[in-house]
Amino acid sequence: MEPIGIIESCFKDRFGTPRQPGLVSNAWARLQLDKKLHPEQALIGLEKFSHLWLIFLFHQNTNNRYHAKVHPPRLQGKSIGVFATRSPHRPNPIGLSLVKLEKIEGDSLILSGADLIDGTPILDIKPYLPEIEAIADAKTGWLDGIETREIQVKWSEEIKAQVKDWSLRIHHPELQSLIEKTLILDPRPLVYRDQSTYRQTHAVRIFDGDIHFKFLSETLIEIIEIKKLS
Amino acid sequence: MEPIGIIESCFKDRFGTPRQPGLVSNAWARLQLDKKLHPEQALIGLEKFSHLWLIFLFHQNTNNRYHAKVHPPRLQGKSIGVFATRSPHRPNPIGLSLVKLEKIEGDSLILSGADLIDGTPILDIKPYLPEIEAIADAKTGWLDGIETREIQVKWSEEIKAQVKDWSLRIHHPELQSLIEKTLILDPRPLVYRDQSTYRQTHAVRIFDGDIHFKFLSETLIEIIEIKKLS
Repeated sequence: MEPIGIIESCFKDRFGTPRQPGLVSNAWARLQLDKKLHPEQALIGLEKFSHLWLIFLFHQNTNNRYHAKVHPPRLQGKSIGVFATRSPHRPNPIGLSLVKLEKIEGDSLILSGADLIDGTPILDIKPYLPEIEAIADAKTGWLDGIETREIQVKWSEEIKAQVKDWSLRIHHPELQSLIEKTLILDPRPLVYRDQSTYRQTHAVRIFDGDIHFKFLSETLIEIIEIKKLS
Repeated sequence: MEPIGIIESCFKDRFGTPRQPGLVSNAWARLQLDKKLHPEQALIGLEKFSHLWLIFLFHQNTNNRYHAKVHPPRLQGKSIGVFATRSPHRPNPIGLSLVKLEKIEGDSLILSGADLIDGTPILDIKPYLPEIEAIADAKTGWLDGIETREIQVKWSEEIKAQVKDWSLRIHHPELQSLIEKTLILDPRPLVYRDQSTYRQTHAVRIFDGDIHFKFLSETLIEIIEIKKLS
């Protein structure tokens, strides 16, 4: 097994990277294929598909010890069998992500909606086959009863203006929405979700900026400042 | 990477194994998990999902030379970039198959609809997430214009009765339908689809029997005989 390419992504750290694809629809990613695979030929015909599977390695797993049960954040501390989850901590550290193909530029794919950290090694690309793979009424077990909180994001006009300048510079017009969609997924680990930790500052790195924010309540996030790295 | 288990399947050879999952809905497969993964814990919660992803190795690839373009049977001889196809011949020999979970029996999953050859090493199981992964209106590129032939299967009463006995013995009541669905996918390689090869006999191995058949026309298959191996 050898990567066919390495992902460039707007998400730079594990913290803040969405746990499933599609949740942050305007997340940006780019995959440049290894030249020795002859991308100019190997990609022919792919441009007419709207969605792709990426099979990738969870390369940032730090703990490689196997646990048969895991604690997905949505279960609020309860555990479940690892194969009933999409946890990165699995016997073989392989991930599966459905992404939108925006366009192909030479040897590179421009993708949206990916839940991948910058630097993720990609093992394969496969076209999405809706006739076989779109099963709207599939049963989803423990995910059925999970409620999601509607979280709001509070911005100052000053920070909004700063994001607007930033978005123009990096040519990503939907940057403000990308940041909001990322934060309302609530990237905090469970231990930081206790009420006593409100007003504690967290930071998520998106593109070349650190977004500092805090929870004012379970359903309200305030953006405190944005520190640019470049 | 180490397999989490090896598939037992009704399909014993590459020849005749469906090229996508779900096409032979009553295809039978069983996956017994490696004991060292503690299946009794690792499978908890999976039983309430109806569909699963299997990530597997194409272990029967004989030619490991990389080709950037491939010739999928549906393109009738034309070639296309390997990443626009689900061909088994890819840079990393990883397959992705959506299957139906019939039930869990201890350390084993009973599956239907798989397109996997007996003996396929499985690398991962992931639950199917319809909210994210069911995109009915995804665009499918070169697959759009492909027409499928409606193929009929002709059985003698004698062979039908033989299949009925067989199905009772192996406890697979839908065996006749499984055989029909497998054959109407037309397992013949393109070079054997020429009119001059009609009436040539082919055989597909399903469970412990060889189904000998021939094409009488482009849309009619005759079952000639069934040879039992045990």
